[in-house]
Amino acid sequence: MYPYKELQNIINNEIEQLNFNIEPFELYKPIEYVLSGKGKRLRPVLALIACNLFSDEINEAINPAIGLEVFHNFTLLHDDIMDKADIRRNMPTVHKKWNDNTAILSGDAMMIKAYEFFFFLKPEILSKVLPVFNKTALQVCEGQQFDMEFETRINVTAEEYLQMITLKTAVLLAASLKIGAIIGGASEKDANLLYDFGINLGIAFQLQDDYLDVYGDVKTFGKQIGGDIVSNKKTYMLISAMEKANYEDKKQLFELINSTDIENSRKIKEVTEIYNQLNIPLILKNKLEYFHNLALINLKQIAVKDESKNILSQLSKELIIREQ
Amino acid sequence: MYPYKELQNIINNEIEQLNFNIEPFELYKPIEYVLSGKGKRLRPVLALIACNLFSDEINEAINPAIGLEVFHNFTLLHDDIMDKADIRRNMPTVHKKWNDNTAILSGDAMMIKAYEFFFFLKPEILSKVLPVFNKTALQVCEGQQFDMEFETRINVTAEEYLQMITLKTAVLLAASLKIGAIIGGASEKDANLLYDFGINLGIAFQLQDDYLDVYGDVKTFGKQIGGDIVSNKKTYMLISAMEKANYEDKKQLFELINSTDIENSRKIKEVTEIYNQLNIPLILKNKLEYFHNLALINLKQIAVKDESKNILSQLSKELIIREQ
Repeated sequence: MYPYKELQNIINNEIEQLNFNIEPFELYKPIEYVLSGKGKRLRPVLALIACNLFSDEINEAINPAIGLEVFHNFTLLHDDIMDKADIRRNMPTVHKKWNDNTAILSGDAMMIKAYEFFFFLKPEILSKVLPVFNKTALQVCEGQQFDMEFETRINVTAEEYLQMITLKTAVLLAASLKIGAIIGGASEKDANLLYDFGINLGIAFQLQDDYLDVYGDVKTFGKQIGGDIVSNKKTYMLISAMEKANYEDKKQLFELINSTDIENSRKIKEVTEIYNQLNIPLILKNKLEYFHNLALINLKQIAVKDESKNILSQLSKELIIREQ
Repeated sequence: MYPYKELQNIINNEIEQLNFNIEPFELYKPIEYVLSGKGKRLRPVLALIACNLFSDEINEAINPAIGLEVFHNFTLLHDDIMDKADIRRNMPTVHKKWNDNTAILSGDAMMIKAYEFFFFLKPEILSKVLPVFNKTALQVCEGQQFDMEFETRINVTAEEYLQMITLKTAVLLAASLKIGAIIGGASEKDANLLYDFGINLGIAFQLQDDYLDVYGDVKTFGKQIGGDIVSNKKTYMLISAMEKANYEDKKQLFELINSTDIENSRKIKEVTEIYNQLNIPLILKNKLEYFHNLALINLKQIAVKDESKNILSQLSKELIIREQ
């Protein structure tokens, strides 16, 4: 099995070699800019790992893996316009560096470009893989829509929240694994087990993201700390706090959410204090562990030798304790 | 050969049967809204006609034809945000009726949805057709980027303009024909001839659009008259006027373009008067006729009997004298 670092390097090298120095420059430069921001490359690496579980030959999966990364970065680009986010991976977002129109159009071009990387597949594989990718891409949009709607809704249940992050985050991790597995020649059963593993891992991953948004370090996290609190995102933290809070705490939380004139730093500080009092970090970590365990159960059932699966069980552990 | 009306009805019936009554409603309702605005359905009808040129069986082409229409409507949706257009097909645009975020995200979902309609094709055909569609989709984005850049550039040549409308408008008409032809079993040569026919027809089509923007009737045209003049679009009208104008006219045109406090109706009236004086409508019509003739030459070379081609030569005539 290839180690994570090596797969990440393969992806980074391939992305570096993409030529975006073409006209119209204003359309392609932002795409290059977004892709040059070194993320974890989690989705393409998962695709390659999944392929590698079933085949020693991973070359076929490299282009589709790039397609998954390009698609993921497209969603970040458009989400950042909608969320009015200024910073991503310690860099100004595209709509800040350029403008909204550029961000919309370069995002569109990026999404279309993502499909191109799948066309290297043989026809029979292409027509298996593309519907998986396409359904997932649509679900990611659905997740973003729910996420936006939740911002202005008062009551969002934990269940609704988990459903939303499944769509917005988990399905793409799951699909990356499934696509890699299909290309590697996995049975339908194993490909679906990897998909389920990805769903559960993805939920745990997003819960850690929610945690880091409040308790992370701005330098390692790469995003503004407390961004979710400022924008009243109904994260698992806030939903759990609302559920657990007594009358006084709940009243204070509502006041903080509804106040329009409070300074951001004070809002972040006071909401965080309520989270601390209510032990929300522990509640979140327990939930995260629950989904992590489900993921490991899925992994166990896959019909390849345990040795090969170690990279995924190890990776899942690292992802849920990560600081960035 | 199926007549245009019948093919249009097939497309309209299929689109009406699409179910967008699914959650999240805020994501899918705008898509239904946009698709319910009865356009000409030109792209899908062209795909069906092209298929029908080579095959009596057009069923295989219906879904991809819908995909082309969905894609086209996606581009209108996002373009209308970027162009700040309030009305389209006599209806408020999505970002006006809902908001910018909804228009961005529903547009994204719509673009992804467009691909879905191609997955009904057999693997071998799918892997021939999708790269044609994908390259075209990217070119349409490039065209929109050039179009936006031209708005703030002083010197745009007629050649650059024709290149821009080729990307923004003509390639999708051309690709619709080519895709239909491939599905119908055309030879590569005939599929490419139809593509070229589509490019030349598309340019003529857009020139007529430029004409209608100034000389059309708001009721039949479905868009605000003079919109291009107000937004300083470097259309073929304006570029030709700049080329033909004497010192005085040119000065007046520059003043009209650069003035920020002039009333829209006055700006439209005065620019139109200059166009009239300089005989710009005639110059445009001559250019349009030139591309129309090129299209007919392409059509002539296609290896099917003339009788079958009549529908396309007839349609091309109607398109370039259309009032809407």
